[in-house]
Amino acid sequence: MTPTFSPLIDELIERLRCLPGVGPKSAQRMAFHLLSRERDKGKQLSQSLAKSMEDIGYCERCRTFSENPLCQICLQKSRDPAVLCVVETPADVLAVEQGSHFRGYYFVLMGHLSPLDGIGPEDIGLDKLSLRLAQGEIKEMVLATNPTVEGDATAHYIANMAKNHGIRATRIAYGVPIGGELEYIDSNTLAHAFNGRFEL
Amino acid sequence: MTPTFSPLIDELIERLRCLPGVGPKSAQRMAFHLLSRERDKGKQLSQSLAKSMEDIGYCERCRTFSENPLCQICLQKSRDPAVLCVVETPADVLAVEQGSHFRGYYFVLMGHLSPLDGIGPEDIGLDKLSLRLAQGEIKEMVLATNPTVEGDATAHYIANMAKNHGIRATRIAYGVPIGGELEYIDSNTLAHAFNGRFEL
Repeated sequence: MTPTFSPLIDELIERLRCLPGVGPKSAQRMAFHLLSRERDKGKQLSQSLAKSMEDIGYCERCRTFSENPLCQICLQKSRDPAVLCVVETPADVLAVEQGSHFRGYYFVLMGHLSPLDGIGPEDIGLDKLSLRLAQGEIKEMVLATNPTVEGDATAHYIANMAKNHGIRATRIAYGVPIGGELEYIDSNTLAHAFNGRFEL
Repeated sequence: MTPTFSPLIDELIERLRCLPGVGPKSAQRMAFHLLSRERDKGKQLSQSLAKSMEDIGYCERCRTFSENPLCQICLQKSRDPAVLCVVETPADVLAVEQGSHFRGYYFVLMGHLSPLDGIGPEDIGLDKLSLRLAQGEIKEMVLATNPTVEGDATAHYIANMAKNHGIRATRIAYGVPIGGELEYIDSNTLAHAFNGRFEL
């Protein structure tokens, strides 16, 4: 018989393990930390979790997580409705907002095409995207899916959709990341950086 | 203005940060993981947290965390009441149970003496321990506080208490950990290992 704590503590430790990157030792440390020093914060976390799991749905326009029918960005009137940036996740929206001067709207796929896992166009909302493209307001789509095999395939699929609607589709540039050292950059990225070289 | 998610998501991310070792990026990852794929587990975690923060108190005998007046180990009749192992935390109880053949009872300090932080004998339950020693059932105390300056000081303090009650006090051995390489062991530990050498 493996020794254990009390049933309630064991249950708490077990359930903390549903968090990504949390193994048995971290879960134990988290449980004891909350019990020893942060009971109020533990209760607040419990309430936030319950409310979030229940109330957060998806934005009707861009599919990102939102507790309201439209997310905060889709509600902003000051953005350029002619440019739409397509990303894989809500976290990518934040990354683009922080790292670029993009001022259009977003469309969040909540994933990427992956036929082997049974994830087709409708699972990533492309039926909805197609309706939006048909409305004629959008002039350019910036495809900012991840620079992975799946992300690239998804970007190409969407670029074809855009072409069918007579809309310009662009892909974010591949190249060497700023501040990196050439020595440590993989050869595929470096090949892309050479192909995409520009005049100084 | 830093871009953010919706207020509810921002709150969830902020509150996940009360967990030890969880920074802003991990908290964001945890929130999106639960929202995307594990809403049921998120709700279960919320319930466990609420119940644990509310219901878990301390064992009346050994001071470890327990939702009942007495913890599971203190309730076991088959243990040897003549030997008491003193440890700093509930996690240490589990470590001793897993790693030794100790079959006595425990006393959990929930910390160690630390005069600079204002933590004195009563804060780690030594008044309670003294009453228990006075009952005369305990013949030996194994002092298994951490091998740190504070843990050692605490062990010495408790050893003096034991002496006053005419009870034998022992300290777990210092030495080289099994499976380690001498090359990487600090000189202080190695000095202790040489002092504590034994006949083969």
